[in-house]
Amino acid sequence: MDPEHPDTEDAVGTLHDAALVLGPDDQVLWVGRAAADHGPDADHHLDLGGRAVVPAFVDSHTHLVFAGDRSAEFEARMSGAAYDGGGIASTVAATRAATDDELRRLLADRVAEMRDQGTGVVEIKSGYGLDMATETRLLRLAREVTGEVTFLGGHVVPPEYRSCRGDYVDLVTGPMLAAAAAYARWVDVFCEPHSPYAFTEDEARAILVAGRAAGLGLRVHGNQLGAGPGVRLAVELDAASVDHCTYLTAADVDALAGGSTVATLLPGVEFSTRHPYPDARALLDAGVRIALATDCNPGTCFTSSMPFVIALAVRELRLTPQEALWAATRGAADSLGRDDIGRIAVAARGGVTVIDAPSHRHLAYRAGVPLARRLTTAP
Amino acid sequence: MDPEHPDTEDAVGTLHDAALVLGPDDQVLWVGRAAADHGPDADHHLDLGGRAVVPAFVDSHTHLVFAGDRSAEFEARMSGAAYDGGGIASTVAATRAATDDELRRLLADRVAEMRDQGTGVVEIKSGYGLDMATETRLLRLAREVTGEVTFLGGHVVPPEYRSCRGDYVDLVTGPMLAAAAAYARWVDVFCEPHSPYAFTEDEARAILVAGRAAGLGLRVHGNQLGAGPGVRLAVELDAASVDHCTYLTAADVDALAGGSTVATLLPGVEFSTRHPYPDARALLDAGVRIALATDCNPGTCFTSSMPFVIALAVRELRLTPQEALWAATRGAADSLGRDDIGRIAVAARGGVTVIDAPSHRHLAYRAGVPLARRLTTAP
Repeated sequence: MDPEHPDTEDAVGTLHDAALVLGPDDQVLWVGRAAADHGPDADHHLDLGGRAVVPAFVDSHTHLVFAGDRSAEFEARMSGAAYDGGGIASTVAATRAATDDELRRLLADRVAEMRDQGTGVVEIKSGYGLDMATETRLLRLAREVTGEVTFLGGHVVPPEYRSCRGDYVDLVTGPMLAAAAAYARWVDVFCEPHSPYAFTEDEARAILVAGRAAGLGLRVHGNQLGAGPGVRLAVELDAASVDHCTYLTAADVDALAGGSTVATLLPGVEFSTRHPYPDARALLDAGVRIALATDCNPGTCFTSSMPFVIALAVRELRLTPQEALWAATRGAADSLGRDDIGRIAVAARGGVTVIDAPSHRHLAYRAGVPLARRLTTAP
Repeated sequence: MDPEHPDTEDAVGTLHDAALVLGPDDQVLWVGRAAADHGPDADHHLDLGGRAVVPAFVDSHTHLVFAGDRSAEFEARMSGAAYDGGGIASTVAATRAATDDELRRLLADRVAEMRDQGTGVVEIKSGYGLDMATETRLLRLAREVTGEVTFLGGHVVPPEYRSCRGDYVDLVTGPMLAAAAAYARWVDVFCEPHSPYAFTEDEARAILVAGRAAGLGLRVHGNQLGAGPGVRLAVELDAASVDHCTYLTAADVDALAGGSTVATLLPGVEFSTRHPYPDARALLDAGVRIALATDCNPGTCFTSSMPFVIALAVRELRLTPQEALWAATRGAADSLGRDDIGRIAVAARGGVTVIDAPSHRHLAYRAGVPLARRLTTAP
């Protein structure tokens, strides 16, 4: 699965009749052909019976730390109610009211559910606290399970600041950011003129610039509900990733092609909101790097399944199965600025995933079937 | 979950704080409120922690007995190749070449995969043999795992009969049917003028009428690739079910509304072929009973997941979560002429399924996540 690997046979570097050795923390110690040569000794051997092995999926966009249930909002939306981001407030209320232990248990269950579906490294955002104490709490809890923690105080303007938005931006860029920097690697903002709850271009720029000054890398929620400034702002500030990209103009595609920002596509959101799917082929044709992630969250997409996202990417985004696998592993790793995950090569981290089928194509071919499971050396 | 149950609270008969007792063969012995009263004693108790319990899904349309792999055909189709039924021949060749033991193992794996995703009763068709010996073999193997066995010698005209189609219809309606009747409960035919491999209206009628004379119930593959005679033929002959219904005219909907044939929708096929989804709301608005099934098969839809089909039904067919659950349980039971499955009531069979979530809505809300698992008393 590593294109730099000398024995590869196709564009994603497929090896047939292969073996690998996993070390502590599921780091790859050796990979190669099983028959032609032998790797170092291993303490335990496992015959995978010809099943395909891929890099563990990298889920580079999730909102996993929250309490509350919004299944009724989902049902109403499927019956025709519109989504404008307003429902986030109900999750904020439930999350503020939850104890650390409750949130920790919910988070652990969700991460375990992801592992059981083949995900390795997972990025986790705050954004359901929206006050100093709770945002810090969410970041601390996220940091207990991943190094890829994102401060999303700029998720929406909380209800108590609707009449004084500037004060909330001051809070996010000031004391909240200062506290967040102890736990977060990234700062993110929901830049969306089509939602009255999200942030304008100027507000988003202020949050991102402040985050960068605090030493954080940049991510942007952009162009989710309509064409807007999010994508171009992300490229202008050389953000690592701009996520959603549901509504793209030709100028947006050109901007992405001229920069280094990864376009992270979240087709589970379009599935769960009935929005149109993004034009992934236009991005690929322009040479833009793309990533796939779940956006697992209680409002717009409560899937934790990277295989489901891959199936949607093939069906709806018209990616080939290889392109989809790439975007869900290497592309997502790129969006996190990581070259040590999302691949199977010596020293690679994040683990590997076994598909209960002879090829990665079956992730889309057998849509909905739980075929992927992360392989681990942990007891 | 039984609308005739006196304690129900909504259209599908949801009981809260409920308990049930399963007997041998997972038959329901008692169901009611856990707190208000008590059922008969049970040998073992299991606390499901507030998880939702639904009737085990009834998968009333599958083609599970086959050998061979068609993932490359899937990938080509996703890149733009059309589907016309011609690929079935490659499965026929692989299936004819497989031993009983190979087919039995493949079938057992697929049935187990379905059970692990919440399916109880499964219907299984022949149709990848298309000669006397192999069709009989497939029906015998199917009969080992289900009573709902369907003779589909009329799947496609096999390559060796392309220049003498009438001879093949004679074979299907004559000696092949006579042998099939020992194992099959149903006869089915792929009536599709838009495929050169499938059967015309007259050929289909001959096969169905002969099947009925042999004591079999009737099912029809109709209107999958374009508008055609399948639906109206099914209603004319009072078939139990007409399956696919992808392309429906107003006359087709009227015919279904005026008859007792169930319309079985298979949205996994539209997902995996990029065909348009059927107009389920027009059927419901006309009062037609609908069922949902996977059509699990290696060509047009290799999903075994009823939860995935339910999620597609909500997203793409615009069924409410309740309507989708109903169609995947009671509706599918109706399509098999069964009132003893697809429900939770005393004496109901087929088992029950636990959703790892507080409601059946989560099957669509959490699309792609393997939340459903059949509960069984078997060791």
